[in-house]
Amino acid sequence: MLATRYPLLSLARSTRPSRQFASISPLPRISGYGARTMSATAARPDPFKPAARVAGQRQDVWSIVNEAAAASPVQPIVNMGQGFFGYNPPQFAIDAAKDALDRVECNQYSPTKGRPRLKQAIADAYSPFFGKTINPETEVSITTGANEGMLSAFMGFIEPGDEVIIFEPFFDQYISNIEMPGGTIRYVPLHPPKDGATKTSPASEWKIDFQELENTINPKTKMIVLNSPHNPVGKVFSREELQRIGDLCVKYNLIILSDEVYDRLFYVPYTRIATLSPELYERTLTVGSAGKAFYATGWRVGYLIGPEHLIKYVAAAHTRICYSSVSPLQEAAAVAFEQADKQGFWEESKNEMQQKMKLFCEVFDELKIPYSEPEGGYFVLANMASVKLPADYPFPPHVANRPRDFKLCWFLIHEVGVAAIPPTEFYTDANAHIAEDYLRFAVCKNDDILETAKERLRGLKKYIS
Amino acid sequence: MLATRYPLLSLARSTRPSRQFASISPLPRISGYGARTMSATAARPDPFKPAARVAGQRQDVWSIVNEAAAASPVQPIVNMGQGFFGYNPPQFAIDAAKDALDRVECNQYSPTKGRPRLKQAIADAYSPFFGKTINPETEVSITTGANEGMLSAFMGFIEPGDEVIIFEPFFDQYISNIEMPGGTIRYVPLHPPKDGATKTSPASEWKIDFQELENTINPKTKMIVLNSPHNPVGKVFSREELQRIGDLCVKYNLIILSDEVYDRLFYVPYTRIATLSPELYERTLTVGSAGKAFYATGWRVGYLIGPEHLIKYVAAAHTRICYSSVSPLQEAAAVAFEQADKQGFWEESKNEMQQKMKLFCEVFDELKIPYSEPEGGYFVLANMASVKLPADYPFPPHVANRPRDFKLCWFLIHEVGVAAIPPTEFYTDANAHIAEDYLRFAVCKNDDILETAKERLRGLKKYIS
Repeated sequence: MLATRYPLLSLARSTRPSRQFASISPLPRISGYGARTMSATAARPDPFKPAARVAGQRQDVWSIVNEAAAASPVQPIVNMGQGFFGYNPPQFAIDAAKDALDRVECNQYSPTKGRPRLKQAIADAYSPFFGKTINPETEVSITTGANEGMLSAFMGFIEPGDEVIIFEPFFDQYISNIEMPGGTIRYVPLHPPKDGATKTSPASEWKIDFQELENTINPKTKMIVLNSPHNPVGKVFSREELQRIGDLCVKYNLIILSDEVYDRLFYVPYTRIATLSPELYERTLTVGSAGKAFYATGWRVGYLIGPEHLIKYVAAAHTRICYSSVSPLQEAAAVAFEQADKQGFWEESKNEMQQKMKLFCEVFDELKIPYSEPEGGYFVLANMASVKLPADYPFPPHVANRPRDFKLCWFLIHEVGVAAIPPTEFYTDANAHIAEDYLRFAVCKNDDILETAKERLRGLKKYIS
Repeated sequence: MLATRYPLLSLARSTRPSRQFASISPLPRISGYGARTMSATAARPDPFKPAARVAGQRQDVWSIVNEAAAASPVQPIVNMGQGFFGYNPPQFAIDAAKDALDRVECNQYSPTKGRPRLKQAIADAYSPFFGKTINPETEVSITTGANEGMLSAFMGFIEPGDEVIIFEPFFDQYISNIEMPGGTIRYVPLHPPKDGATKTSPASEWKIDFQELENTINPKTKMIVLNSPHNPVGKVFSREELQRIGDLCVKYNLIILSDEVYDRLFYVPYTRIATLSPELYERTLTVGSAGKAFYATGWRVGYLIGPEHLIKYVAAAHTRICYSSVSPLQEAAAVAFEQADKQGFWEESKNEMQQKMKLFCEVFDELKIPYSEPEGGYFVLANMASVKLPADYPFPPHVANRPRDFKLCWFLIHEVGVAAIPPTEFYTDANAHIAEDYLRFAVCKNDDILETAKERLRGLKKYIS
């Protein structure tokens, strides 16, 4: 069985503002109805003009990949692109969801901050990591997936003109989520290993230039976004790196939004920045995802943990955005958190994913395609500098115009039938060159799919010099 | 069994901007960490100051009702306040949700615009009403509940300074949802029957002053929000009223956002404004709710129907807000729409709710408490002008300071143990006097609960002059 769905998800995604505001042609004004007796001059001339925040017209990576998949001679495509799981949540989570569906109160509105049982389960699950008793009523808030949780954090604290620092590459939704409340984004690149084109090395080799980071901070800076384990790099930020970032945040009084949605999947020692000191706890919002933790990206259950003076405004924003989150799956997530340790799920989950990573990356070793060895999460960045794209290859114009990784992506789909994601989508134009030889593969798929993908990727051999 | 949950939902809700921006005390700046070696002058002085959009501190109606419920000598309270259902979704919907949980792809991300099967089911269900074939790919978008659907519509079209007209009373979430993208709200009151304090009359007696409506429109007006069946009034807007509103929207080129979440519950002829003419379809976004249709307010599955040139930007905004919506319950909603007609569910649903309304309102007839006879939905507004509140009744200050309906609400909870919602929460201060004698009751509860509520409400007799 090959992992294709819909055949590939067709997703309208945000793009970078620097290049998204294409000219908007206002639709023609409607005339006729009522116009007989009423003056047309009073009418608004551009009634259906969309807001600038959604008006971007550039084709996004997901629809390009989808289109490539549909047009490929190899069918069906093996989809290693988007990070959805190719298998079901653990049975104890599924059973809990089914039980919840039989209970009247689990099908109705939940409290806006989340169901008490889930907040308690999360407080219980995370208190040992945080070295303190997390108060479920004041220090936890449930959101509609981690994505809406991040948006709620920005909506809770960012005013027009405030600046937010994010590292490149970044999860693309950050951009629109920061811009919606009027924030300005400052980008700080992670610098890849110099020999990334020739040598496999740990993802930790993607480094922060701390002077560059500090130079980016100014009086308008309000918040910094971290992501560890990192998508797409696979880097787990070291304790020392987090301490240095944290010191800067204390020095300049910044809020830290720490996206830790892959926090159960780490293959090197894992540190949470909020746990480094009380001063850092006080300024950190930690974001988690029950969907990612329990192989259920479609459940849309996320959560934030942090001090009351931050959480209360995240919750207030969430209420204004979604009102409340999905009830039966909140209840299921509560049960899943309660049972995960007893079932040995976390260890099993981590071991399985690490095994998948190892299994899949064998093909890159065979092909001498270097990659960043992931320290966490389920994405691997492979450096395809050695793959020679035929000079006369018929890329469509909207792919030919993009960085080399888009061409690599198109080429792999058409020549070997494997879809991956071009990571320059997660960069500003200025820094896109850093990633133009890479492709991102998601390994959260069944082993047979991974084996099929490997077999297909061996077909690249003839293009490798 | 009495219908209390948690005991009453504790919900942080939005309040009116005119009165919400209480003074914000910045939290004290953190010092210490890192301060030894670093200049404190560089640090941001107010690091944890929330954004104005969430900084409102006034106690909201839901927490006041909750607090009153907790403090009442009558326990447990019969909760006729919030509009959650006191019973489960139909078995065919529950079964469909359980089936979906067993399917890998139903637990993972859905396409951002919604699952194809659900979009198709909605297109099929609504095409007959619209008198046209609705294209599921371009004219339907799924959202995380109708609430986030409304927000997506505002985010898709409202720029700072644009004006949106809403009728008073209004669903309170509209306010924050319009303000988040920077919109300005213009309020047009529904005028209640003059003899509302003495005589029961149909909810249709709440009237629009069309001159007042037209006077509110100006060159900044971009959108108007309708709600039919109306919460909390219970009014179903007549075809003639909708036509007159529609004529104004064509004349002034406005987008219509028609909140029709109670569209399956109408007890008089029901008209959808989008169906009145092609010119109105072209400018109307119709909002629906699978949660309200199938007794599952906690499922968070909403949808918008409209022309492609509007829907595409709603979908783009939704993608930026929530990314995608909950997958297994989208699938369940798809099956539920497919089966509802065959199962006779819509007729049954409407008849049952009308029966509940009739059953419950008997107590008002007995007590000679006039009410607006609902023409749709599951809320009833009762006029309690005849209930004499003792002059020396010990209302807490935060209730004593509010309009009379808040005192009525508190009084009912404490004296007879029935919770209802004070509708001035759904008004601006300027117009709150219109509703200060009313309370809103939700009848979507089991019949035994309704009977208990009635028995308790008979205890009001001694306070009625």
